[in-house]
Amino acid sequence: MFIPEFRDIESAMELIAQHVHRTPVLTSRQLDVITGARLFFKCENFQRVGAFKFRGATNAVLSLSDSQRAAGVVTHSSGNHAAALAHAAVSRGVKAYIVMPSTAPEVKKRAVAGYGADITFCEPTLAAREAAAAEIISRTGATMIHPYDNFFIIAGQGTAAMEMLADIPDPDAVIAPVGGGGLLSGSAIATRHLAPAAKIYGAEPLLADDAARSLHAGAIQPALPPGTIADGLLTSLCERTFTVIREKVDDILTVSEEQIIEAMTLIWTRMKIVVEPSAAVPLAAVLANRALFSGRRVAIILSGGNADLSKLPFSQDA
Amino acid sequence: MFIPEFRDIESAMELIAQHVHRTPVLTSRQLDVITGARLFFKCENFQRVGAFKFRGATNAVLSLSDSQRAAGVVTHSSGNHAAALAHAAVSRGVKAYIVMPSTAPEVKKRAVAGYGADITFCEPTLAAREAAAAEIISRTGATMIHPYDNFFIIAGQGTAAMEMLADIPDPDAVIAPVGGGGLLSGSAIATRHLAPAAKIYGAEPLLADDAARSLHAGAIQPALPPGTIADGLLTSLCERTFTVIREKVDDILTVSEEQIIEAMTLIWTRMKIVVEPSAAVPLAAVLANRALFSGRRVAIILSGGNADLSKLPFSQDA
Repeated sequence: MFIPEFRDIESAMELIAQHVHRTPVLTSRQLDVITGARLFFKCENFQRVGAFKFRGATNAVLSLSDSQRAAGVVTHSSGNHAAALAHAAVSRGVKAYIVMPSTAPEVKKRAVAGYGADITFCEPTLAAREAAAAEIISRTGATMIHPYDNFFIIAGQGTAAMEMLADIPDPDAVIAPVGGGGLLSGSAIATRHLAPAAKIYGAEPLLADDAARSLHAGAIQPALPPGTIADGLLTSLCERTFTVIREKVDDILTVSEEQIIEAMTLIWTRMKIVVEPSAAVPLAAVLANRALFSGRRVAIILSGGNADLSKLPFSQDA
Repeated sequence: MFIPEFRDIESAMELIAQHVHRTPVLTSRQLDVITGARLFFKCENFQRVGAFKFRGATNAVLSLSDSQRAAGVVTHSSGNHAAALAHAAVSRGVKAYIVMPSTAPEVKKRAVAGYGADITFCEPTLAAREAAAAEIISRTGATMIHPYDNFFIIAGQGTAAMEMLADIPDPDAVIAPVGGGGLLSGSAIATRHLAPAAKIYGAEPLLADDAARSLHAGAIQPALPPGTIADGLLTSLCERTFTVIREKVDDILTVSEEQIIEAMTLIWTRMKIVVEPSAAVPLAAVLANRALFSGRRVAIILSGGNADLSKLPFSQDA
């Protein structure tokens, strides 16, 4: 099992630098007052395709051999990874086969189709998704690019923290949301190398707290049934990401749905930027753990901005 | 009637520079593709208090004489100017009397109160607002700071375009939303001086098109009853702003409510930033006038980001 080291993140950075946005790090006086901490937000909501996922997908596509490029790539996902892989592949002439559940939101189907991917719809079960992907691989020879259980994906996601730590060199803590753990493990590898004294936290919804339970139990725990608004964080860890997280992450902090919505509201109203619910989970963790972060310099990765405007969680007037 | 010249905007810039944010100019590849133009967005939604209004209010407060400072300032407004004046005044120890209609949204009442203003509620009519302000002035000697019919306010609002034109020196066109005309006249004074070849447009909702009708008729036309979602643009021009607009503005473009919502949706989903409906009106004008802007470098002032998350115009799933 290959696990990236910091030099692999450096290689990814070289490979993808001209293709991804160097996103800004924003601060907010008001959020500092509210939290009692000094917060730095790495704005991957401004990344191409609206999420950090474009980093790993671009690294994976640019790391293909010539014969792999010719056969194309495949993944099963209904979220940001599908759109990111589709765009990274198709924009450089590589075929992208995306397996999506037929129940995926229309807006996501349209986005993936808009990037020129070849979409296969299947029943909304993991077995059906894996079967559809296996059929495509046996028929086309396409390379599977898993959303997080992939060396190049993890190395690519690590470039967000690498850039962030160039702008904010000495944070007391780094927080990233955790679903399958690609972003968190990439961030942890970069942070342990560049800012060894910083604490590293994952942030996770209580309704999808398999990573926290896995870390505390010392073995991967299965994901819960979908329940959280943070729909980017439903997946469970794999051995590759769990190995990194066990070794390098200090703790995983869990937050309630109300705390996620409160954090998302604060980011939208005080910072005037659009983030998806998953991206608000680290700020929710700061709000829920004031003592841990009070007076500290805390670097947060805002993972994405693909909020569905037709399904916002803010309470509407009657 | 004193009307600012460019040197007055320069003076305002010197006075307020250390108190206001130098907001960024953002671009969007996707919006360039959609509009066929090359767009530059001056992000006053990231300004303090969430709107360009903080520039003029700060300039007005910093331009008070000592005796005026001692007596305080007064205005009648339920919008961004009230919050901006309250913050600009109270944060430097100047009393701010704000007259608001009792029907103003709770969120706006709380914002103005939160900045420490002394609020007087009145009936929601212009007569009642003016009477309440007059009573405060006769009782306290406070200085009236009108939201746009004020030399220092117009000069202060002009600093947004001045900064923008330092970043984007040679646009083919500059577009600002127009309500009472403070932002548009300040922008026009700055642009005619710094980029004399640029076309200057105001952008206005069809449901509040008094500025367009005034420009075409050659005389100030009264405002229509409130109907547009762009609640920052309900006011009508005054002689001071109309004089500048007649002389320096090329045209005022009007847009439908549907076009405003479409432009707002594009800014939120493609740029991942929060703007209020009024701020989306210039992009709506670009979308509604493709031929006018096709292939042109167009600089747009995004006037504010104080959208009410409990009353968003995006259609909700059932």
